[in-house]
Amino acid sequence: MSITGRSDKASGRIRLGMVGGGQGAFIGAVHRLAARMDDHYEFVAGALSSDAARAKASAAELGLAPDRSYADFREMARLEAKRKDGIEAVSLVTPNHMHFPAAKAFIEAGIHVICDKPMTLNLKEALALEKLLAKNPKVIFALTHNYSGYPMIRHARAMVAAGELGEIRLVQGEYPQDWLTTDLEKSGQKQAAWRTDPKRTGAGGCVGDIGTHTYQLGCFVSGLKLDELSADLTSFVKGRKVDDNVHVMMRYKGGAKGMMWASQVAVGHENGLKIRVYGTKGGLEWVQADPNYLWVTPYGEPKRLITRGGAGSNAASARVTRVPPGHPEGYLEGFANIYTEVARAIKAKRMGKKVDKDVQFPGIEDGVAGMAFIEACVKSSAKNGKWTKV
Amino acid sequence: MSITGRSDKASGRIRLGMVGGGQGAFIGAVHRLAARMDDHYEFVAGALSSDAARAKASAAELGLAPDRSYADFREMARLEAKRKDGIEAVSLVTPNHMHFPAAKAFIEAGIHVICDKPMTLNLKEALALEKLLAKNPKVIFALTHNYSGYPMIRHARAMVAAGELGEIRLVQGEYPQDWLTTDLEKSGQKQAAWRTDPKRTGAGGCVGDIGTHTYQLGCFVSGLKLDELSADLTSFVKGRKVDDNVHVMMRYKGGAKGMMWASQVAVGHENGLKIRVYGTKGGLEWVQADPNYLWVTPYGEPKRLITRGGAGSNAASARVTRVPPGHPEGYLEGFANIYTEVARAIKAKRMGKKVDKDVQFPGIEDGVAGMAFIEACVKSSAKNGKWTKV
Amino acid sequence: MSITGRSDKASGRIRLGMVGGGQGAFIGAVHRLAARMDDHYEFVAGALSSDAARAKASAAELGLAPDRSYADFREMARLEAKRKDGIEAVSLVTPNHMHFPAAKAFIEAGIHVICDKPMTLNLKEALALEKLLAKNPKVIFALTHNYSGYPMIRHARAMVAAGELGEIRLVQGEYPQDWLTTDLEKSGQKQAAWRTDPKRTGAGGCVGDIGTHTYQLGCFVSGLKLDELSADLTSFVKGRKVDDNVHVMMRYKGGAKGMMWASQVAVGHENGLKIRVYGTKGGLEWVQADPNYLWVTPYGEPKRLITRGGAGSNAASARVTRVPPGHPEGYLEGFANIYTEVARAIKAKRMGKKVDKDVQFPGIEDGVAGMAFIEACVKSSAKNGKWTKV
Amino acid sequence: MSITGRSDKASGRIRLGMVGGGQGAFIGAVHRLAARMDDHYEFVAGALSSDAARAKASAAELGLAPDRSYADFREMARLEAKRKDGIEAVSLVTPNHMHFPAAKAFIEAGIHVICDKPMTLNLKEALALEKLLAKNPKVIFALTHNYSGYPMIRHARAMVAAGELGEIRLVQGEYPQDWLTTDLEKSGQKQAAWRTDPKRTGAGGCVGDIGTHTYQLGCFVSGLKLDELSADLTSFVKGRKVDDNVHVMMRYKGGAKGMMWASQVAVGHENGLKIRVYGTKGGLEWVQADPNYLWVTPYGEPKRLITRGGAGSNAASARVTRVPPGHPEGYLEGFANIYTEVARAIKAKRMGKKVDKDVQFPGIEDGVAGMAFIEACVKSSAKNGKWTKV
Repeated sequence: MSITGRSDKASGRIRLGMVGGGQGAFIGAVHRLAARMDDHYEFVAGALSSDAARAKASAAELGLAPDRSYADFREMARLEAKRKDGIEAVSLVTPNHMHFPAAKAFIEAGIHVICDKPMTLNLKEALALEKLLAKNPKVIFALTHNYSGYPMIRHARAMVAAGELGEIRLVQGEYPQDWLTTDLEKSGQKQAAWRTDPKRTGAGGCVGDIGTHTYQLGCFVSGLKLDELSADLTSFVKGRKVDDNVHVMMRYKGGAKGMMWASQVAVGHENGLKIRVYGTKGGLEWVQADPNYLWVTPYGEPKRLITRGGAGSNAASARVTRVPPGHPEGYLEGFANIYTEVARAIKAKRMGKKVDKDVQFPGIEDGVAGMAFIEACVKSSAKNGKWTKV
Repeated sequence: MSITGRSDKASGRIRLGMVGGGQGAFIGAVHRLAARMDDHYEFVAGALSSDAARAKASAAELGLAPDRSYADFREMARLEAKRKDGIEAVSLVTPNHMHFPAAKAFIEAGIHVICDKPMTLNLKEALALEKLLAKNPKVIFALTHNYSGYPMIRHARAMVAAGELGEIRLVQGEYPQDWLTTDLEKSGQKQAAWRTDPKRTGAGGCVGDIGTHTYQLGCFVSGLKLDELSADLTSFVKGRKVDDNVHVMMRYKGGAKGMMWASQVAVGHENGLKIRVYGTKGGLEWVQADPNYLWVTPYGEPKRLITRGGAGSNAASARVTRVPPGHPEGYLEGFANIYTEVARAIKAKRMGKKVDKDVQFPGIEDGVAGMAFIEACVKSSAKNGKWTKV
Repeated sequence: MSITGRSDKASGRIRLGMVGGGQGAFIGAVHRLAARMDDHYEFVAGALSSDAARAKASAAELGLAPDRSYADFREMARLEAKRKDGIEAVSLVTPNHMHFPAAKAFIEAGIHVICDKPMTLNLKEALALEKLLAKNPKVIFALTHNYSGYPMIRHARAMVAAGELGEIRLVQGEYPQDWLTTDLEKSGQKQAAWRTDPKRTGAGGCVGDIGTHTYQLGCFVSGLKLDELSADLTSFVKGRKVDDNVHVMMRYKGGAKGMMWASQVAVGHENGLKIRVYGTKGGLEWVQADPNYLWVTPYGEPKRLITRGGAGSNAASARVTRVPPGHPEGYLEGFANIYTEVARAIKAKRMGKKVDKDVQFPGIEDGVAGMAFIEACVKSSAKNGKWTKV
Repeated sequence: MSITGRSDKASGRIRLGMVGGGQGAFIGAVHRLAARMDDHYEFVAGALSSDAARAKASAAELGLAPDRSYADFREMARLEAKRKDGIEAVSLVTPNHMHFPAAKAFIEAGIHVICDKPMTLNLKEALALEKLLAKNPKVIFALTHNYSGYPMIRHARAMVAAGELGEIRLVQGEYPQDWLTTDLEKSGQKQAAWRTDPKRTGAGGCVGDIGTHTYQLGCFVSGLKLDELSADLTSFVKGRKVDDNVHVMMRYKGGAKGMMWASQVAVGHENGLKIRVYGTKGGLEWVQADPNYLWVTPYGEPKRLITRGGAGSNAASARVTRVPPGHPEGYLEGFANIYTEVARAIKAKRMGKKVDKDVQFPGIEDGVAGMAFIEACVKSSAKNGKWTKV
């Protein structure tokens, strides 16, 4: 257990910028808090809104120096790259369609990128981003699939990797929500508006917003690669332009199978992300809303409830744990773990050291895989559930 | 709440016979206990085993008169039909392949039939049975889809029927078990042997054994009819002749959708049957292992936990409830509710009365639907998940 | 696992009578069902109500022969004792003040007694009953502290007895209900009326009705004997003549301690009986409303959830288990286990055999202990919580 | 919902110092993180250890300027009070016996104090501190009874205050842990050593460490004042100098009653703090390990599960909520809420404004009440549970 704060004094705080996340946005504040939690970052610059007035007001409110508030992310990348005290990393927290151009600008400026998910508007952009990163090997690229930062998810992944579940047979994932049960987008609610607009969110609605999280988490824990899928996407709400419910059957390389259900119309669910993995020797189950618990069932033995930091919890979870067992951690701590892992990588780079092998955060591969998943789901569903390779 | 026992004395106990259920069997004892619970039946005759010696020994142990123990169910049907004190109803608790011939014998003898599920070996037999029953309208035929006897399931069904959930959009069902994680059938375990033998169990393994339960329960609660499905059946255990894991995507008539997962290799699950239904106005969730609870979520309101017999529980559940809230009922009580509902129907027939409209038990339609479901799953899976009408 | 029914045919069903339990009563029906569940008993005689007309009507409804329905329990004891086919055992399910005279009548007639709890109106009667039984060693006396019939309670008791929890330090028991939150007794509700009337219920209200259950269960599981207690009894509802909330601190012989809370005004609780036991090497927790689970925590190891009949469940629970793990059992099954255990004892007596040492049911010692507990609680509370020996 | 960060730019970050919390300490890091979470504080000075070398090393690791690292808290108070950029507030995170002298030094220097609990070594010191604060009305004094910062606790308190539970009858609190099951203090474990040493921890062990938390939280939620108590303190571990298990019966002013159980030897519990409150019109239940949920039961209605930020959650919880429902918050967020509430008060003072009436944090009254509670428990237990006024 460690609440380290800025433990490696030699290296000091990382100067961080942000694109998006101005007044009225939600996820930007989450990123800033996550960055601040372990004191590895200092937030110093931003292009906080595509609306110039809002950008300025937001920057002032957040205490940015006036000359570090930009109306345009390209200008920000250019000017910050020139400054001696310019940002070393940037968080991209805009709607999806802005991710690619913004990432491109900062990568080309040599600035590390921490990007919200889904990574891009489509697979084509994702592949282009992958190429760009290959050409800029000094730039660290992280994707905030934040759920992979939860300690018990780290525990689960380590268990599977160590063979404790035997050969994996099944990966069952679900992520029900209910916030789009009605046609909220017609009310002018900002979140609903862009997330149901294909131009800003991409071809997948629910599948892109939360389906990818579920998919990524299933792969993260099980270590499996998806081979093909059969999907049935539905827009239950009349007039909605993207899917709001996703049913997927999956076949992983090596013979494992899985199902995924993601929904934004499942009344009674807030953020009901759940992952279950079953192998020849054991099973496990994790629920995001109760993240400090992990059910583990060795075949033929009683069910065990592992608690974060508690008896039987492993080193992989301890690395990313802050407080003692029985004192719950939550969403922000999990999110912060991504930021802190990235900080470890950035600081290692700074010092010319190799990144410690235990450091783990989602990156370009997860982003490409996610976009491929969305595209395959949309394609399969359009062909009445035809099994489609990813 | 009512633990009535034999309340309608005028009519007296129903004389009951049984085919199958001798020593070493499990489900026969469950049926007998379920029949006995509310004192509506008297167990008086049986063809308890296809093995004559075992049949005799079993009958003696259970206190049957020697002349009411039969080596053959056809003889039993014939002779019991002749007796003045002959059985009025028979329970069929053999492996699946015997259900049809046995049902036929008793129906033709004018004896009511309470049949274990799945109803027959295949859809063809199911349709033949349907015809036979149409020709014998005096015979009551019940199928022990026992989960539909649970009070909170009755509560849920009544809620949906009353429109409390609005228009139904989603029916998510699952039934994970782990008892066939290894090749138990090779060990000589009797249950595993016949349930994995296509000649005795039918073309579906897991899908027939527990998939049909899940499917039936989803329809029972939601009131929906299935239109088509896409299935992926797997035999994870090497050498197994039937499926041990089933993934199904479903489209109901009227536009609702659903998923079903049934598994016998999901390590850590005993009998993890769960049903979730979501409509435009609310959602509900029920878990068989904790059957006295029903989660109900009206859209935009706090989650409510309805308890059997407790505040907010409705009349449909009260009809089939025995003890006060907080004192749990279980599997046997739910099973007994089927027997007691059938008893009410039989006694009404006896007295020449109409069966009360509140009396509910699964019958031939459920059986035909179940066999059609199994057949569609097997077909769809054989065609790589092609959407298949039921 | 065994759903045996009447397995020992040689001995046949036990002829059972009942005092109390006529129309409008609740617990009588529970006793009859519990007796019927495993087919060890045949209900043949009764003095079902102190109201003659109701007694007759109840008997008719339950199918008793007219000459086996009695207006008076003394006459019943006398006449049944004379019949060749007279009852062998009687269930006493009247309000508390009738337990002693009825038990006396049947014991003196040589008839086994299954008595509802609390055993008597006061400790004096309890001690008199103890003496009477000492003089009639052939008579079996059982007290329906039904919670000790639950399989996972048997599991827990066996664990403690085997030393798996080490030396016991703490026994924490609670039993909150809310049915007497208002002055229900003034509404004429029959249950509330007699249970709040000291003449019929005894000096303790809540402490007698459910406090004794909690106390008995704590001792049953822990194997400890109480030394002294300090109690604070309250009547929260204005005008109520007995306590409706009980707080007790307890000191067991040998140094263990405990608390008990029983309440009938804890809004939101139905029958929230919970027992927790902690020793030097482990802890356990059981909740009556979810009786198929037992939490077990060996010190320094992950929490384990033992399920009835599931992996890790022991022989003591298997003895009293009917259906497989994951198929819940409930209150009636636990209650029936008491009847079935008593049946085993009666049948052993019949055959002149020793009762198997595994057979366990609460008896006169539990009854005396329970009455001593009530009396000590009332006394201690009257003396402002003075520590009082039991 | 608001993750505001430093929203009131005009006022800027509060300069914060710390006494205690150097390398090897746990709670100091928690305080720093809590202070950092919403960006209201800047950590700039410290006397981090009574060991000079450790103090220096700790300061360096945490990035303090060398001249802001002090070997002695008195010097720190004196010198910081003189600086123009001196600290405005200080966190006291030493063992208990240092709280009073440190608080005194900073209060007299006009620096706001955020003090860990229990507030002082004994009641005498607590009363002295109260006087001192009365003389220094400009100094804000906060006590980190952090559990009162949890959103659902705020929800619960507001419900009770609004009369939604009717007149309160019962407050049942418990806080079981198991970390002192063995004689850990003999192993040299630092936490165990000082917490079981009366000179550093005070006369109460378990009762002071976690009993006070439970007591404070019960009062915070119920709004009640304790009148008298009867306690039974135990040291189960041989040779332990303070209690490791506490049983208390309580009588509140106005007639409500309650029980409290706190234990450090309850095997299987990590930080099992639970509060239940029952009134004439409803009940509620909250568990610290699952803090985003609140069970609410209006009398005669179904149980409701209120989720933080979800349907039915009130404004009092929304004030201190950061992320949407279904995304869990935890211990650190609850702790940070105390710091942020204090920041609001400090900033109001800075601007010469009145503190908003919604701002709530525990202060000197809670501290005095807590020390009185400990003292009464110790006294009562020494007198064999005599009811003792607080």
